[in-house]
Amino acid sequence: MIDIRAIQDKLTIFSNEREWDQFQSPKNLSMGLVRESAELLELFQWLTEKQSIDIVHSEKQMLLVKEEMADVFLFLVRLADKLDVDIEKAALEKIKINESKYPINLSKGNMEKYNRRNK
Amino acid sequence: MIDIRAIQDKLTIFSNEREWDQFQSPKNLSMGLVRESAELLELFQWLTEKQSIDIVHSEKQMLLVKEEMADVFLFLVRLADKLDVDIEKAALEKIKINESKYPINLSKGNMEKYNRRNK
Amino acid sequence: MIDIRAIQDKLTIFSNEREWDQFQSPKNLSMGLVRESAELLELFQWLTEKQSIDIVHSEKQMLLVKEEMADVFLFLVRLADKLDVDIEKAALEKIKINESKYPINLSKGNMEKYNRRNK
Amino acid sequence: MIDIRAIQDKLTIFSNEREWDQFQSPKNLSMGLVRESAELLELFQWLTEKQSIDIVHSEKQMLLVKEEMADVFLFLVRLADKLDVDIEKAALEKIKINESKYPINLSKGNMEKYNRRNK
Repeated sequence: MIDIRAIQDKLTIFSNEREWDQFQSPKNLSMGLVRESAELLELFQWLTEKQSIDIVHSEKQMLLVKEEMADVFLFLVRLADKLDVDIEKAALEKIKINESKYPINLSKGNMEKYNRRNK
Repeated sequence: MIDIRAIQDKLTIFSNEREWDQFQSPKNLSMGLVRESAELLELFQWLTEKQSIDIVHSEKQMLLVKEEMADVFLFLVRLADKLDVDIEKAALEKIKINESKYPINLSKGNMEKYNRRNK
Repeated sequence: MIDIRAIQDKLTIFSNEREWDQFQSPKNLSMGLVRESAELLELFQWLTEKQSIDIVHSEKQMLLVKEEMADVFLFLVRLADKLDVDIEKAALEKIKINESKYPINLSKGNMEKYNRRNK
Repeated sequence: MIDIRAIQDKLTIFSNEREWDQFQSPKNLSMGLVRESAELLELFQWLTEKQSIDIVHSEKQMLLVKEEMADVFLFLVRLADKLDVDIEKAALEKIKINESKYPINLSKGNMEKYNRRNK
């Protein structure tokens, strides 16, 4: 269980203390989110897929991975707070959408995007 | 409170039913995360910052925003499950790191990156 | 006029000397391209649009902008070399596609994506 | 040889005819560049590295690849025009920087980032 409200409240206090709220428009937060995701991507860029699976055995690399994943999460929950989005509800709804977009019989063993299927 | 375990379990079942696990290396999931973040970014791309704040008043746009935020979250929690990362713990630790990287007296009113300060 | 062949040849020599060719699959190069684009984005993240226009007056910032733009370009032309893509030809064709996707009368003063128009 | 001036002039006319110049701040263009890079990334997301190399044999996929590469290039050259950046010059300078950051003897066979070396 993640106490998302507690994290969002910490972020609000953090921003208020630094007078950063003025910079944190949804537009700018979405830029931050992409940037942090790209920093996470960078950790996997030159690894083979097999090496990316084995990264769990490197304590040093996992520290970096956790830090970048945290950054992505923090930008996402800050944005959710700003836009009053219930992340859990949105996630559960999206899983349902995906279940209908990707029916088991059409999707088994291939990840072809639903709108490219049969093209 | 987000029941992250429940969401991760749903995603595991979803992938297993479709035999998608073979494609979901951390490397590939990190690519998905960036891509979904970029789709969220796209919704704000041509808006002014003011317009991005006012997006909450557009039901149609907010549906899209929620869906893209959900996608980002789902890739993130799937990756966390694969790499056995406790997102909440990582987030709380990162907030502490940020508090020391960005002391209030140096950071008030400017978001200059800590490692560019005074350059 | 950009002598793209000369740049691609320099990159080939650079990679061969370092035995980096083994890492430079199109998949990995596309990851590098996103990452470099995100580093360029970072330079504009907390700026207003007006400030992003005025960045040309900051010699220090423009040095960073040029370096990140160069990185994006280098990944793109390396990928083009690997996949035998004629960038100029592709660009000219895309401009034509855009001209038909965005007819002047429908697009004047708004950048709504062609496939969202009238939705 | 790429006649970049000719392409930039076409883009200027394209934007002027549609009155899009008002939206094309460097900040917004950098967002477009990331987004297009992510669309290119998407084409390689679920492919193995080997499959990403073999994509050249699929005419259908290569059409998509060329279109996304063109989009990345067009945003980059538009931004270069706005910021008065000489892309070729920046690229040649960056190659020189990379040659000193990644000396052959330290970099042979590994792509470790120069600022992480020996950490």
